[in-house]
Amino acid sequence: HQTVGPMAGTISPSAPVWVVENKAFGNRAFCRQVEGNQQFGDYSDQALQGLRMWRDVWAPTMRKALHTIGGLDLKPIISQALQMGDELHNRQTASSSLFANAMAVAMALTDLPNKGEMVGTLKYVTNHQMIFLGLSMAAGKAIADPACDIEYSTIVTAMCRNGVEFGIRVSGMGEEWFTAPAPVLDGLYMPGYSAKDAGLDIGDSSITETVGWGGFVLGGAPGILSLVGGTPEEALAYSREMLKITVTTHPTYRMPALDFMGTPIGIDIRRVIQTSITPIIDSAIAHRDPGYPKIGAGLLRAPLDCFKKALIAFSRKYSTN
Amino acid sequence: HQTVGPMAGTISPSAPVWVVENKAFGNRAFCRQVEGNQQFGDYSDQALQGLRMWRDVWAPTMRKALHTIGGLDLKPIISQALQMGDELHNRQTASSSLFANAMAVAMALTDLPNKGEMVGTLKYVTNHQMIFLGLSMAAGKAIADPACDIEYSTIVTAMCRNGVEFGIRVSGMGEEWFTAPAPVLDGLYMPGYSAKDAGLDIGDSSITETVGWGGFVLGGAPGILSLVGGTPEEALAYSREMLKITVTTHPTYRMPALDFMGTPIGIDIRRVIQTSITPIIDSAIAHRDPGYPKIGAGLLRAPLDCFKKALIAFSRKYSTN
Repeated sequence: HQTVGPMAGTISPSAPVWVVENKAFGNRAFCRQVEGNQQFGDYSDQALQGLRMWRDVWAPTMRKALHTIGGLDLKPIISQALQMGDELHNRQTASSSLFANAMAVAMALTDLPNKGEMVGTLKYVTNHQMIFLGLSMAAGKAIADPACDIEYSTIVTAMCRNGVEFGIRVSGMGEEWFTAPAPVLDGLYMPGYSAKDAGLDIGDSSITETVGWGGFVLGGAPGILSLVGGTPEEALAYSREMLKITVTTHPTYRMPALDFMGTPIGIDIRRVIQTSITPIIDSAIAHRDPGYPKIGAGLLRAPLDCFKKALIAFSRKYSTN
Repeated sequence: HQTVGPMAGTISPSAPVWVVENKAFGNRAFCRQVEGNQQFGDYSDQALQGLRMWRDVWAPTMRKALHTIGGLDLKPIISQALQMGDELHNRQTASSSLFANAMAVAMALTDLPNKGEMVGTLKYVTNHQMIFLGLSMAAGKAIADPACDIEYSTIVTAMCRNGVEFGIRVSGMGEEWFTAPAPVLDGLYMPGYSAKDAGLDIGDSSITETVGWGGFVLGGAPGILSLVGGTPEEALAYSREMLKITVTTHPTYRMPALDFMGTPIGIDIRRVIQTSITPIIDSAIAHRDPGYPKIGAGLLRAPLDCFKKALIAFSRKYSTN
């Protein structure tokens, strides 16, 4: 369904989703609400209440406001946020704030007779520092999808994890997944948790790295290092390293800390194999058991085996022998 | 009147001002509206219309909303913004966005019967990327003022410029100004303008550098380099250099790009003279003639002569011979 979800976040038929349209190619992609409980496997009543509020109040109010203004362009928000320390995978402080301001105006222009719901939604959107993650994930999916199914293309069109396996898709290989065991994250833990509590890498949010955000722009987002660990110099080095496995840099999305270098985009499985450099991803750490909130965040490398398997299959498919 | 103004911005008796209170010391400081025309000496009707809108609509609406929420804490906004690429002198993209988020909620909670004025004010505050400059200047003044008039103190309590002279005040020297000719800025110009059009350094906004923002935190705000020129490495070096002329770093205001180093604060005239390093300031460039908007932005050094004169006067005043 061209849909992505954060962590173990399920999407039921009645759940409103973010809808992002790629106007250049006419495709749409979707992502569910980002919250801190049910998407980590917590089914307590308090966790489900957050989903009900989203379904009954926050999403309908925002939907009405978005219709008033005829939708909202995400590119200006994303390009600004990348110059304000967001990497759009685990840090959305700037993009969420910019998005909230646009929503505040849209809501003010909309006839919302239930003032309590209007104020509640405005407080929700202006105080949710990760609200833009649902939008950056859907935007990543909307950007990547038109690159799928291009004959001979060795570009990665998806990377995702389910807590057991890590999988990638490659443009010239259609819908086939190339998988390897999901890695352990190297990161920092919230008080009371440690590496022995950690589950393996999970969630669709690495669609952001697939389009050159997240770990790929860590050099421009040093604020996240207090969450994932490491030094500013290491973060800058990751962003420069990703140039070696991508085919270009983005003309609009730029990082001031790297002299306004464009974000590295278009992971090429041939370059990954030639260099043995795999994509760097920064991600949240879920508990190995359900019912806990986010217990930490850290860095990981996409497994090299996914890329090896993909290149071997690619060679077989396109071999002219 | 404990008041600061941007560029050549005048303050008439009927002009509403930002009011910032230093709750630790009980003092208040004030700053006028930041806009792009009259504060550069433009007295056209279009320029004055912006002042009238501020006086009649925007300021009264925000005043009412701020009273509803009992005022707004600036420290959380400032500390977040410094981690989002603001330096609070020429780049307020993040702080303005965060401030607008808070104002949107405050306005929604306020009885504002004129919907047109409410929506107009909301659009003004959510789209004004420098609105927080008036607040960061007033905050800088509110922070610096309690440090004035401390016997034997060699700490700088104000730096400002009037387009002809650059002046500093020193805590142990009371209200005396130590001046030197205002410097020329080294910067980048808007299309159609060049160095021959530039006026000399002007405005009270270097109160931000006085409390350790602006040029002092340039290393954490590389996004501004497209406006003022220079490389990210030079920007980081300026922030490290300012450690040599200040007495401490701020415990709350930190720069992720410098491994969460606190902002350098407390310029000591003795250290300036010992090192011959003077404060680095990033500032807007005004035209030498009135009636033009901002024609560029750049960097300058506070003149060493101000500090020499201050230290000589200080020695005379406190000499026990």
